[in-house]
Amino acid sequence: MRQAYHEELEQLAEQQCRMCELVGTAMRQATEALLEADLALAEQVISEDSRIDELRIATDERAFAVLALQAPVAGDLRTVVSAIQASADIERMGGLAVHVAQAARRRHPQHVLPEQVQPYFFEMGTVAVQLAADAAQVVRSRDVGLAAKLELDDDAMDDLHKHLFTVLMARDWPHGVAAAVDVALLGRFYERFADHAVALARQVVFIVTGQLPS
Amino acid sequence: MRQAYHEELEQLAEQQCRMCELVGTAMRQATEALLEADLALAEQVISEDSRIDELRIATDERAFAVLALQAPVAGDLRTVVSAIQASADIERMGGLAVHVAQAARRRHPQHVLPEQVQPYFFEMGTVAVQLAADAAQVVRSRDVGLAAKLELDDDAMDDLHKHLFTVLMARDWPHGVAAAVDVALLGRFYERFADHAVALARQVVFIVTGQLPS
Repeated sequence: MRQAYHEELEQLAEQQCRMCELVGTAMRQATEALLEADLALAEQVISEDSRIDELRIATDERAFAVLALQAPVAGDLRTVVSAIQASADIERMGGLAVHVAQAARRRHPQHVLPEQVQPYFFEMGTVAVQLAADAAQVVRSRDVGLAAKLELDDDAMDDLHKHLFTVLMARDWPHGVAAAVDVALLGRFYERFADHAVALARQVVFIVTGQLPS
Repeated sequence: MRQAYHEELEQLAEQQCRMCELVGTAMRQATEALLEADLALAEQVISEDSRIDELRIATDERAFAVLALQAPVAGDLRTVVSAIQASADIERMGGLAVHVAQAARRRHPQHVLPEQVQPYFFEMGTVAVQLAADAAQVVRSRDVGLAAKLELDDDAMDDLHKHLFTVLMARDWPHGVAAAVDVALLGRFYERFADHAVALARQVVFIVTGQLPS
């Protein structure tokens, strides 16, 4: 019984990691679709999002079953409830990758991004994918130190996002209103993706310490 | 013991309702601050957000205590876990109201919104405040029929949001890039606020029926 219980907890962590890997892949592909105006890749990100949704449902069902059948307490209770919270965050990260892919699809065969801002999105995509990978690693390892590193990467994302807005709001922005609106919303999607990855890492700190990081 | 337990569950629901009321008030005031360029009101929304954050922490602590001490099952288990999920949604709604207030503060004493789009935001604000009130009502009453009504109001929000984008992306948009970016992001904040209210209502359907609405 106890062994089955611990296997259930491990499976929960494994499902979260798998979800993190999927949304990391989705964001990497969505960014490539955006930068290369690659319609097929954009379509792939959009259609594969259902796998993330299915994993979310499976994770939540498993977590509810553990709560109902095992009535965990203390760190185990935090682990199981955090799995439910985490699955919502990770599903949302998948949704944000889909938004990026949808923008690429909507403007195809045109590029969404003026060349001037493409390097920002290359960088934001790189940081986002790294955050998803680090979030998976934090869930797997429960490494509170690595969890703190995610906050630094999120600061890097915020800096990129702020710089992007400086470019966008400059009086000499030459690319017109529609491009500016696309760029502003896309920038926001990357920033929110990073915020959710940080939320995941903070939940692991809560599991390990019983306290949310300040 | 059982009576104390049921009181705890009622208190959980009450805290969620209180949070919904607070974010409804925050969004009403943020919208007024935006439309009237009212700096004092914007500041108030921003400073009072900490009350919502405190209620979230209190709700989560209460829910964890019930899980650990009472080990609820079935509908009660769904109620308690949903309270934790709901508190995250409602806190985020508060964060979105703060984003609206921050936009009003950033541009003060100028108006953020060109007159042409103010009616959209008046309407989106009205729908958002109604959704927060209806979400509170659904949590209190567990009325699955009312939960379905929130999806209709969310459709109204989506329609307003789409119309707004048609105006924004029109070739003859006369208000420049910075105003367009502000309007696009603000529109997104209202739309997300509505999405979180719908998520709350769907959680109540899950509590009552054990199934998420399709």
